[in-house]
Amino acid sequence: MSKEKQFVKEITPQSEDFSRWYLDVIKKADLMSYSPVRGCIVFKPDSYEIWENIQKELDGRFKETGHRNAYFPLFIPESFFQKEKDHIEGFNPELPWVTEAGGEKLEERLAIRPTSETMVGHMYAEWINSYRDLPLLINQWANVVRWEKRTQPFLRTSEFLWQEGHTAHEDEADARRETMQMLDIYKDFAENFLAIPVILGAKTPSERFAGAVDTFSIEAMMKDGKAVQAGTSHYLGTKFAVAFDIKYLDRENQHQFCHTTSWGVSTRLIGALIMVHGDDRGLVMPPKVAPTQLIMIPIGPPKTREPVVARVNELFQQLKKAGVRVKVDDRADQSPGWKFNEYEMRGVPIRLELGPRDMENGQVVLVSRVSGEKKMVAQEHLVEEVQNMLAEIHQQMYDKAKQFRDDNFSSVDTLDEFKAFLEEKRGFALAGWCGSAACEAQVKEETGATSRNIPFEPAEHKETCFVCGDKAQHTVVFGKAY
Amino acid sequence: MSKEKQFVKEITPQSEDFSRWYLDVIKKADLMSYSPVRGCIVFKPDSYEIWENIQKELDGRFKETGHRNAYFPLFIPESFFQKEKDHIEGFNPELPWVTEAGGEKLEERLAIRPTSETMVGHMYAEWINSYRDLPLLINQWANVVRWEKRTQPFLRTSEFLWQEGHTAHEDEADARRETMQMLDIYKDFAENFLAIPVILGAKTPSERFAGAVDTFSIEAMMKDGKAVQAGTSHYLGTKFAVAFDIKYLDRENQHQFCHTTSWGVSTRLIGALIMVHGDDRGLVMPPKVAPTQLIMIPIGPPKTREPVVARVNELFQQLKKAGVRVKVDDRADQSPGWKFNEYEMRGVPIRLELGPRDMENGQVVLVSRVSGEKKMVAQEHLVEEVQNMLAEIHQQMYDKAKQFRDDNFSSVDTLDEFKAFLEEKRGFALAGWCGSAACEAQVKEETGATSRNIPFEPAEHKETCFVCGDKAQHTVVFGKAY
Repeated sequence: MSKEKQFVKEITPQSEDFSRWYLDVIKKADLMSYSPVRGCIVFKPDSYEIWENIQKELDGRFKETGHRNAYFPLFIPESFFQKEKDHIEGFNPELPWVTEAGGEKLEERLAIRPTSETMVGHMYAEWINSYRDLPLLINQWANVVRWEKRTQPFLRTSEFLWQEGHTAHEDEADARRETMQMLDIYKDFAENFLAIPVILGAKTPSERFAGAVDTFSIEAMMKDGKAVQAGTSHYLGTKFAVAFDIKYLDRENQHQFCHTTSWGVSTRLIGALIMVHGDDRGLVMPPKVAPTQLIMIPIGPPKTREPVVARVNELFQQLKKAGVRVKVDDRADQSPGWKFNEYEMRGVPIRLELGPRDMENGQVVLVSRVSGEKKMVAQEHLVEEVQNMLAEIHQQMYDKAKQFRDDNFSSVDTLDEFKAFLEEKRGFALAGWCGSAACEAQVKEETGATSRNIPFEPAEHKETCFVCGDKAQHTVVFGKAY
Repeated sequence: MSKEKQFVKEITPQSEDFSRWYLDVIKKADLMSYSPVRGCIVFKPDSYEIWENIQKELDGRFKETGHRNAYFPLFIPESFFQKEKDHIEGFNPELPWVTEAGGEKLEERLAIRPTSETMVGHMYAEWINSYRDLPLLINQWANVVRWEKRTQPFLRTSEFLWQEGHTAHEDEADARRETMQMLDIYKDFAENFLAIPVILGAKTPSERFAGAVDTFSIEAMMKDGKAVQAGTSHYLGTKFAVAFDIKYLDRENQHQFCHTTSWGVSTRLIGALIMVHGDDRGLVMPPKVAPTQLIMIPIGPPKTREPVVARVNELFQQLKKAGVRVKVDDRADQSPGWKFNEYEMRGVPIRLELGPRDMENGQVVLVSRVSGEKKMVAQEHLVEEVQNMLAEIHQQMYDKAKQFRDDNFSSVDTLDEFKAFLEEKRGFALAGWCGSAACEAQVKEETGATSRNIPFEPAEHKETCFVCGDKAQHTVVFGKAY
């Protein structure tokens, strides 16, 4: 067997071929490997650690808002999918089926979960009896499978990791409040943790989750102008409650159907943060999610190496104690220059250099990955300076991404205008839409772009549909999407 | 559809029917639900939170010893299983197979992973080139499936959650060091976190992991005298390395096969801690893993309710700030007596009562779940008293479990003696064993008991095989097992 190394010599520039750039970066930074199973990747430690940081942060936010975690079975009986018509239509083409187990053919096929509304619905029907059991607020961290035709590492893989929240409520108002609360948590998380600006809005009917009454999303713009749907929150009405008989006795002792919601984000966020922030030198990791926030590199000739390394290790302890995720690279067999390139490529937000002259002067050099700025800093104020610089870098990354999005955001009145925009710049465009599925389909057919969402706060309100010219019902963001 | 509530009125006493007691307790404490998929349970929030605490603690220990997490695919191609003869023989009868996906029949069947040695082996062959890549120390938190004929909640379910460590090393010595290090971590975790005393030892060949050179285990005794294998650590030699071509260039530039290990614990630990510590009143949770360590219950007549609840909430904040996992139950529609029973049944280690007289005296009452001891404590020393009491309860629970195990641990010289012991007491027995599989099989056939392990530190060394009377090669712990 030959050892096929996924080694990348040079990273293709983004301007030359963005897809190539993406694949080069994630391989060179050792984030993933293709697996022998179609469309499934291995999350190597450097990408899995990003996911762990995402999990930790989101899990805290879910718990603060009263949710608890649980775990439901991976397998879903075929009959469950039949119960909600839209749901089966949406997911059936993507399901893998277990037909044999323990040496026997199964009486009923079992799907590998693509999402868990049906299984959760079945259990909630058993668990919920009275209004006292509501709201029921549960989240699950799990693997799910959707047998995709075209896959792309992190962004679209056959198996992926995610969280799926499932909640049941007494009435529509409470369920809608939950749906919006979770969307807001996703927005705040994307912007304040991943430094990714997002657009909040409602999906058009054709882009809704299979079985939802309303789907809301946060949409992010990648550096090639394409969109990633970074999180969704669904108000499911009583559709799953009716399908699975999730009823409760209300305060007047009457049986009522629950109103349910579901909401999720997945490992595609890893792909999104790479494509939003990365550059031709490699990854650029937002400080709050970065596995390593600061890399320390001792420099100078061999004769001063020992005291320099000793001082670096002292400072390392101070930073670590203060909660900074910090590492030292004191390998003698790699040059500082090689290390500078290596950690820039891996996107570590701050590099710290310390040499013999810095020792004398009681200072260190901090270098920002995002701006390239070099800063001399007194060792005695190191912790504070590092914390400030991490906060600054977060803000700079957010601002930069926001500026990029603004620069690639248009407003169009006709389909031709939109086509011209896509040719010239790519990106998102705001357009009026009459509300007909036909017009939406025409946009997709002629441009490849889809409605991203109906933003809650559009920059302007459009009067006419940019396809048919009729009165606009909504002002919609259109763009090509991953 | 009828609402089938898994409601238990009274918990069956352990002495009457231990299995019944176990099922009563886990239902009444709301830990799980049976799912519509054979042998799969739903981990409800109260049991999942136990698992989260287990994960957090173990994950920290794995990372401290240089391991990183990664994620490998759920699906394993059928051909992978063929590569290691013993492995396929061991797992084949338990595999579920995906034969169709995305509307098409698959060319090659995909197994749902029962464990990931084969997939990891395939990837390691790609990742490892040189001794500089070694040791490679990776862990995975994941779901796995083994299509079991007989299942029992937590202890043996078709799908379960676990962690599986997979490491590759330059030589046998380093791989064996790792195997023992992880076994020691499991032992320390079981004893110092779960308060479960365990016996460390080597499995006999018939009880080894399918494909291992050596399997080591920690074995715990349940309150019915039966054993739970609570964790295993395997030295795999070069068997998987040869099967999957995991080679490296050594320091002399020669190709060598890696020596690999794997090790795991699973959600069966939840079952074990219930069966080791629980009593006729319900769960008894070891303080370090308990989702709620202390429950606060305000008492007294309605007219003093407001100031009492206010004081309880102040103390709640102090305890929470100090890191105690604490909850308040100030519901007015449930009596204190009802609440005392409820939280005893749920196994909360400490109950705090505060009434109007306690207010006057500046004290509270702490009640230990394990000893029933009531203690008046000054409010000003509450945090310290609670922390001490939690530590004390941990130690008492460990000592109690150890005492139980000692009381039900025999030493036998003949198979008849062992049978008599099993009739009278159940439990474990130390016995000499000649090393023949035939003698081991005879024990199993005649008593239902199996060799648990060959303990590293037996209380005595046996001279003759308790079955055939030949010279003993090993002194072995025998017992019935879950």
